[in-house]
Amino acid sequence: MTDSAISVTALKRRIDCALGRTPCELCLHNARWVDVFNGKIIEKADIFIDAGKIVDAGRHCKARALETIDVEGSLVAPGLIDAHVHIESSMLSPVQFARLVAPYGTTTIITDPHEIANVLGISGIRYMMREAKRSEITIRFMLPSCVPSTPYETSGATLKAQDLVDLMHEPEVLGLAELMNVPGLLAKDEDLLEKVALTLNAGKLIDGHSPLTTGAELSAYAACGVTSDHEASTFKETEDRLARGMKMFMREGSAAQNVDALSQTVTPLNSRFFSLCTDDASPDDVFANGHVNYVLKRAVSRGIDPIEALRMATINTALHFGLKSKGAVAPGYDADLVIFEDLEHFKVKEVWIAGRRVAQNQRMLTPEPVTVADETVKGCVKIKPLSLESFKLTSRSGKARVIGLHAGDLINDHLLLEVNTRPDGSIDCDINPGLLKLAVIERHHATGRMGLALLKGFVAEGKELNGAIASTIAHDSHNIVIVGDNDEDMLAAAQAIEAMQGGLVLIRSGKVFQSLPLEIAGLMTDRPAQETAGKKRALIEAAHRDFHIPEGIHPIMTLGFLPLAVIPHLRLTDLGLFDVDRFCHVNIDPE
Amino acid sequence: MTDSAISVTALKRRIDCALGRTPCELCLHNARWVDVFNGKIIEKADIFIDAGKIVDAGRHCKARALETIDVEGSLVAPGLIDAHVHIESSMLSPVQFARLVAPYGTTTIITDPHEIANVLGISGIRYMMREAKRSEITIRFMLPSCVPSTPYETSGATLKAQDLVDLMHEPEVLGLAELMNVPGLLAKDEDLLEKVALTLNAGKLIDGHSPLTTGAELSAYAACGVTSDHEASTFKETEDRLARGMKMFMREGSAAQNVDALSQTVTPLNSRFFSLCTDDASPDDVFANGHVNYVLKRAVSRGIDPIEALRMATINTALHFGLKSKGAVAPGYDADLVIFEDLEHFKVKEVWIAGRRVAQNQRMLTPEPVTVADETVKGCVKIKPLSLESFKLTSRSGKARVIGLHAGDLINDHLLLEVNTRPDGSIDCDINPGLLKLAVIERHHATGRMGLALLKGFVAEGKELNGAIASTIAHDSHNIVIVGDNDEDMLAAAQAIEAMQGGLVLIRSGKVFQSLPLEIAGLMTDRPAQETAGKKRALIEAAHRDFHIPEGIHPIMTLGFLPLAVIPHLRLTDLGLFDVDRFCHVNIDPE
Repeated sequence: MTDSAISVTALKRRIDCALGRTPCELCLHNARWVDVFNGKIIEKADIFIDAGKIVDAGRHCKARALETIDVEGSLVAPGLIDAHVHIESSMLSPVQFARLVAPYGTTTIITDPHEIANVLGISGIRYMMREAKRSEITIRFMLPSCVPSTPYETSGATLKAQDLVDLMHEPEVLGLAELMNVPGLLAKDEDLLEKVALTLNAGKLIDGHSPLTTGAELSAYAACGVTSDHEASTFKETEDRLARGMKMFMREGSAAQNVDALSQTVTPLNSRFFSLCTDDASPDDVFANGHVNYVLKRAVSRGIDPIEALRMATINTALHFGLKSKGAVAPGYDADLVIFEDLEHFKVKEVWIAGRRVAQNQRMLTPEPVTVADETVKGCVKIKPLSLESFKLTSRSGKARVIGLHAGDLINDHLLLEVNTRPDGSIDCDINPGLLKLAVIERHHATGRMGLALLKGFVAEGKELNGAIASTIAHDSHNIVIVGDNDEDMLAAAQAIEAMQGGLVLIRSGKVFQSLPLEIAGLMTDRPAQETAGKKRALIEAAHRDFHIPEGIHPIMTLGFLPLAVIPHLRLTDLGLFDVDRFCHVNIDPE
Repeated sequence: MTDSAISVTALKRRIDCALGRTPCELCLHNARWVDVFNGKIIEKADIFIDAGKIVDAGRHCKARALETIDVEGSLVAPGLIDAHVHIESSMLSPVQFARLVAPYGTTTIITDPHEIANVLGISGIRYMMREAKRSEITIRFMLPSCVPSTPYETSGATLKAQDLVDLMHEPEVLGLAELMNVPGLLAKDEDLLEKVALTLNAGKLIDGHSPLTTGAELSAYAACGVTSDHEASTFKETEDRLARGMKMFMREGSAAQNVDALSQTVTPLNSRFFSLCTDDASPDDVFANGHVNYVLKRAVSRGIDPIEALRMATINTALHFGLKSKGAVAPGYDADLVIFEDLEHFKVKEVWIAGRRVAQNQRMLTPEPVTVADETVKGCVKIKPLSLESFKLTSRSGKARVIGLHAGDLINDHLLLEVNTRPDGSIDCDINPGLLKLAVIERHHATGRMGLALLKGFVAEGKELNGAIASTIAHDSHNIVIVGDNDEDMLAAAQAIEAMQGGLVLIRSGKVFQSLPLEIAGLMTDRPAQETAGKKRALIEAAHRDFHIPEGIHPIMTLGFLPLAVIPHLRLTDLGLFDVDRFCHVNIDPE
């Protein structure tokens, strides 16, 4: 959705409609109208809509309408706003993401295109912004603040402050996205501070991301203009952040859930400074639970007043981000509406966007959009030719550093193990039961850079993988990550990924066993959410059932975070094994 | 005060200061710190200040300071914000207005330069903006929406939408000022709607002014993007406006007082949408009671929680107007602080602006500023030569329409009286006891336009004025208004006003009896507030004591509103007598 300029003609029509001189297009009759400003519900209200805007709402309007729909006492609330979400995590293009979440009442999101920026830089962000305009919900942007995340890997792009200047002045850009590099900020990283200054001088906002940061460090962070955080989970963290002017985004998403804890920190004095967000929303979770309406439900189930929770999902967020026509059902506001069955489960009956009914009973009513072939985000897997030799791993000492996985935890172990080697020093999985090979292959510039490592815990004890799994979702640089127990299947996996130009693949005996093509930057697809969720589910099920990946190890997520050089303790990037505790690259052979 | 761009160097220093690596300039030690976000007072806090900004605030800061001031348990709150005030009403230039209100804790105002715009148009607004930069408080602007107020008078300037385009994009302009012409809006006045569209498309705000407007009319008004009102005085008016997304500015000023009534409408659910304002602040009232701190005191005395009241005077207003660095004592915010003795009387001990102590015990500590001779706003009284003949008033019928004043009320009567005339038909005061002559002389373009009328009730019964009173404060076009009982003194008054180039004057026997020069546009002076207040007081006292103006008739205000062609029932503009009920000009002689 794009904002268009307001014309005098449009204003005249609004006046005439409100005064009943001209009929409005539509009236929602007999509504329980949620008045977010007074914090009240008005029974038996009429809501008049014309040209995509609310013209009037209340009980004794003078307005009249060409069409009247009796909503039979249903709750009519402002469309929900997700204060912070990464579209890429859904594996869906913006247009498809919009169609995923709109049926659950989400009509506006603030997104950080961090993942695609790591692959395609400015061109990737521009693609997201173009697609946002084609999508059925309103999408606003925060610009990624840390691309690449670390210097210990090869990303597709590097975004310096200078690169962000033009984008920062675009109207749909609201500021700088989650400023994750807290140590960098406190160490006065020049480029990071230039990004901060650019944002503040453009009059825009900086989102925070500061788990565990406290005291003077938090003050220094806030003093640089950070005005939100979505990582808090305790009363102390909430109070500390609010005291420093940082709004709280209460998160409940596919990757992290804080509502249970954070609900306890809400008081009548601070509730106005809370928003709701999901951070990450996978299609399967949305289909199962909902989106922001699920965050609402969780918040209310934890004792937050339903109207206050609704404000957190609407007007609070609109006010924070300066979205002047969003977040309320009031004259002049966008006619983005969600019709709920109740204020407990927040089950969505209908969703209206810009005065048009787009969804009913959790299904989009609008036709599947035409896919626009956007070549700027395709063909994003560029690798040097590989051979079986590429996957050869050796140790002279007969010892090796091994990444040891724990079920249900992204933090891993830095193991030092004795390994069985062949006469030439090479380590193969067939002579090292329980160990798998891990490869990270640079895929942006065809440099041929490739890191190799050993992995423990990715296959169930006593079982064999008997194949390879590969993905182009590999945080944050999104190189190709492959795990396998034989070099042939690993090579085949790399080749399959190259052939698909991105996505997820299971390989057995040199053949594709399951696949999920992600043709957009190797991260997303233009295929509908239902289809994508189905393929993803099938792939995950096969990974567990047929490739013996144990419960608690997520075939996509665990794999995807193995290259992220900031999560303890041992990681693999395309530049080699990385010791997060010592913060440097290390050899496989510890001697 | 002007905002300067934020530099990387400044951010680095903030970080170093917060972390204690570099000492801050200053620490306010042992403060009762008002944390507006959590809505709490933290005892024994330290507030660290450097380079005009708050670096940290709280109890266990790592920051240290070169200088520490023990504030001995005093309350340290954010500097107060006046959400809506007309500087011109004070008769002081912006620089002097700043020095008037700063000692009472006001560190930011949002002003509508409506009066000077009627005299000097864009050039007058530009003058205010230049002076704002030289002043010691932060001054932000809303652009006048209705210049001239009516077409029934000659103003100094006409501001069409097109004239406002450049100004609307200035950073210190926050939007369009009180949209008073509600009937014009509802009648879809083209130019007014162009101003509305200009403002909304610039992403800025529209302030309201809609006394008595309700229902569909209020919805039409809000649908055009009006987001505040400062004219409400009942619970119903508050609820109706909030429901339509209009914030409430609770007003207590020299001209109107609504806190008593509005305080009763504040609830924990809506308090976040209230701000405080004065609208008009005369120096004598400020010296007697205070400024926004007086509004606070009144609000708290009417039962509003002190912290909630403080939020209304600080963070609520800053959030509404998007003043990102104002309204809180928190890291990164401007070090605009007010130190109160208590939360009941809000007596101000000290005021700090941008980290500098500017006032103590209600007195400015900074030196009297150098007056900059700004020729663009001087010489604003341009009249055609007058003679005694100019003041000649006749009636052929022996009857006349007479403006009848009531003590304590700006609404007047439209009287039809028998009058005594000389053989040539002329009406003189000496043969009509109790009647005075009123003249309004166009003074912007020397057109020679002049209206004459008869006035009853301006002089105490049985007494004589024996002279003339003249003023260039004459709403809204600010022509010269003169009342007198003889043509010689009225002529002398016009000549004295011309000689002073604006201001107020009492004339007796052809000589100046008292005067208050207002050399800036005929509305304001660069002289200090104390001096101006003294002269004004002397002039008012003389008017009552020596010119026998009765109690309840304000020599300046009553006079100043006689030309305002929107207050019932009979007014006088330079174009002649105006019947407000029939909304047209009428003759003195009713036959």
